[in-house]
Amino acid sequence: MKIQVVVRIFCSISVFLCVQYSVDGRLISEKKPDPKNAAAIARWLVSQNSWGVLNTISSDLGGAPFGNVVSFSDGLPNKGRGIPYFYLTTLDPTARNAMKDQRASLTISEYPIGTCGKIDPENPTCAKITLTGKLKLVVGNSKEEEFARNALFSKHSEMKDWPEGHKFQFFKLEIEDFFLIDWFGGPKPLTLDEYLHFKVEELAILL
Amino acid sequence: MKIQVVVRIFCSISVFLCVQYSVDGRLISEKKPDPKNAAAIARWLVSQNSWGVLNTISSDLGGAPFGNVVSFSDGLPNKGRGIPYFYLTTLDPTARNAMKDQRASLTISEYPIGTCGKIDPENPTCAKITLTGKLKLVVGNSKEEEFARNALFSKHSEMKDWPEGHKFQFFKLEIEDFFLIDWFGGPKPLTLDEYLHFKVEELAILL
Repeated sequence: MKIQVVVRIFCSISVFLCVQYSVDGRLISEKKPDPKNAAAIARWLVSQNSWGVLNTISSDLGGAPFGNVVSFSDGLPNKGRGIPYFYLTTLDPTARNAMKDQRASLTISEYPIGTCGKIDPENPTCAKITLTGKLKLVVGNSKEEEFARNALFSKHSEMKDWPEGHKFQFFKLEIEDFFLIDWFGGPKPLTLDEYLHFKVEELAILL
Repeated sequence: MKIQVVVRIFCSISVFLCVQYSVDGRLISEKKPDPKNAAAIARWLVSQNSWGVLNTISSDLGGAPFGNVVSFSDGLPNKGRGIPYFYLTTLDPTARNAMKDQRASLTISEYPIGTCGKIDPENPTCAKITLTGKLKLVVGNSKEEEFARNALFSKHSEMKDWPEGHKFQFFKLEIEDFFLIDWFGGPKPLTLDEYLHFKVEELAILL
């Protein structure tokens, strides 16, 4: 705990010498994995980011790809599983689109984590990942729903107070494919098996 | 210039009391427009952000919506036109997708600008916008290409040194539709005419 307090004060003083916090003061691992380790970089991006752009096919807009800023979580700190969970309402087009066509992707960047320094957000050494797959409702009253609730409400504490009348539901992205750029030389190969079986505990240094 | 230096030093000391810089030290307007003014918020989001997620239909992934982190610019500071320009290569799936199917959207958030404070990135008062339309090549050796080059290279100075062999080209999003959330109560109505004719000079306070 003492280390965390010191780091918090240090981060409050200078953003240039320290990584930033995610939502709700959850401490972020300072160490970016080696870009040669695709699974580590991918799981780090997913665990450290609090938001991304969730893409669906818009039935209202002639089948156009429709990106929407959403908050997500893959689990409690140091216990994430790599699968992004969301808390969505069909009052919003993203959930409505997914009910008609589950094809979806989630795109996240290293840039908001604060570790890209002064390079351009599109510089290939500033990592980015797109997870493509199917956006599905999590089965109600299941163990997975409990996992999703804990994952989301611990990272995004506002969510538990979002209006009941909006009928928010838990969704997940069932990942099928990766597009990962974390260095020069084009997309880094990564299989679903390598991604899911990476030990996320290896990322933690301050939790 | 003196005011800018003072603001830079002040921002270097504390990120919590000041807005952040965009790429290349371009100073960001501190003032967020009134959320009641949809055109002002939309143009502010587009002019202040340096990157977003550009979404296309992936022919490689069974027509899935594919988001990609990209840098963009709508013009020189205080002279933006609201139309996002990009510098893309067909080595990358986004440009390849657009060559086959121009349907696209660009999604950007207020969160990276640094003015959302401690609220969740998905809180409706943390503004977000999705511009839907067609992703098109800018005509070569045209006045518009010159505008796009100045817009992009002034905001993203790295771009002019990107490898010639990658054959980067200028693209633009021809906007057809808006999805803007900047307060409670659902998407804010905004027409293309209102958006394009908003006087962006009204946003500037420190440029």
